[in-house]
Amino acid sequence: MTGWLVIAGLGPGNQAMVTPEVTQAVAEATDVVGYAPYVRRVPRRRGLRRHETSNHEEIARAQHALRMAENGRRVVVVSSGDPGVFAMAAAIFEAVHLGPDSWRTLDIRVLSGITAMLAAAARVGAPLGHDFCAINLSDNLKPWALIEKRLRLAAEADFAIALYNPRSKARLKGIDLALDLLREHCEPSRVLVFARAVSTPEEQLRIVCLAEALPNMADMRTVVLIGSSATQIINRDGTPFVYTPRAVPE
Amino acid sequence: MTGWLVIAGLGPGNQAMVTPEVTQAVAEATDVVGYAPYVRRVPRRRGLRRHETSNHEEIARAQHALRMAENGRRVVVVSSGDPGVFAMAAAIFEAVHLGPDSWRTLDIRVLSGITAMLAAAARVGAPLGHDFCAINLSDNLKPWALIEKRLRLAAEADFAIALYNPRSKARLKGIDLALDLLREHCEPSRVLVFARAVSTPEEQLRIVCLAEALPNMADMRTVVLIGSSATQIINRDGTPFVYTPRAVPE
Repeated sequence: MTGWLVIAGLGPGNQAMVTPEVTQAVAEATDVVGYAPYVRRVPRRRGLRRHETSNHEEIARAQHALRMAENGRRVVVVSSGDPGVFAMAAAIFEAVHLGPDSWRTLDIRVLSGITAMLAAAARVGAPLGHDFCAINLSDNLKPWALIEKRLRLAAEADFAIALYNPRSKARLKGIDLALDLLREHCEPSRVLVFARAVSTPEEQLRIVCLAEALPNMADMRTVVLIGSSATQIINRDGTPFVYTPRAVPE
Repeated sequence: MTGWLVIAGLGPGNQAMVTPEVTQAVAEATDVVGYAPYVRRVPRRRGLRRHETSNHEEIARAQHALRMAENGRRVVVVSSGDPGVFAMAAAIFEAVHLGPDSWRTLDIRVLSGITAMLAAAARVGAPLGHDFCAINLSDNLKPWALIEKRLRLAAEADFAIALYNPRSKARLKGIDLALDLLREHCEPSRVLVFARAVSTPEEQLRIVCLAEALPNMADMRTVVLIGSSATQIINRDGTPFVYTPRAVPE
């Protein structure tokens, strides 16, 4: 049996947002590997081994997956969202880079998924309809000073900004500090979207201006979208629409 | 009949990358509207009207779609990639904002798709595995000075950068100017990916360093990914892998 490794994105949670190529890879797999809540999204079946790992073992998980593929298994590493956006793809290629030369010849493919910021944007309108950036607020793997620098420059560039991992059990402070910093650089009426568990039964959408934003509007399952200076709210009955116009006047 | 408007992303081209919710919406539609090459991706069937428009009529196309939904039609506006990323969603909400109040009560939904930069990233590894930004190089709708400012600040922030619309028949110069500017701010060994028509039979991937990059490596169907200073190449037989490590050392 010739092994392979697929790094697949399961999207934000709704099965109707999983691409057919991902569904197909999972159907052909002998092994599914990932953070436990994502592995549990893959139904049990005969011949499929499910390997659930904790969230703090990304390199060990990557090496395990690579060794199984090398041994002829058909392995799918699952991420939520897109595996290339603050998820498992980078960890796998780090492991390949530092691992034995034989891993470079493996059949490794990345299959995209709908990433959280785009799913969140879609639920409220088109807040990322102009130039934008994505910043991981977790300082587990980078210094907080770098996050601050990027936030400042992103505000100066007038990007719309998506903040991933705004808060975790271990890091309560990230979103607090980010909001303080944004208040120094952006007007109080700047539009923010706190989008939690998008496309799942637990979905919550909150649209507020920067002056009203509170750190506890974000938790581990939230992505925060910050509009550019041009981002607009369209009020109506129910959740307003939010969009960033395509044009910036001369 | 109660009308609705869905703004749907068809992904980069491969049907196996179209989400089931988009396929479902197209199956229920009475009308499909969009730029001709995207509308032609939707198979003909009885009861489905296909409205093909040129690329320069986004607001007129949006208004037409909204009027049809108001008149009880089930309308899908199609974009390639994700409709919220430099595509039709922003144009629709602009039209809603400026249109009659009755349009605010319409059933309007955005359904995400796989956007070009994430499809391109997946094909080469994980070049967007750390903080990144997306910039539309078209100056049809914004001053070139703003594009330059954003490129400079993005380089200073050490984001990986995805450039959409690097070149068109009307704008030959965007990518030339962008490469010149990047050469002022980034080292010559900076990794670039020119990804053309990803996931289609015409797919072409070219991985080069900034010193070797040439404007004619990009055309209308290309997205250009520029690594951060930390982006790595893993050489091997065939197309190398490219990834940006998750960690930035203190």
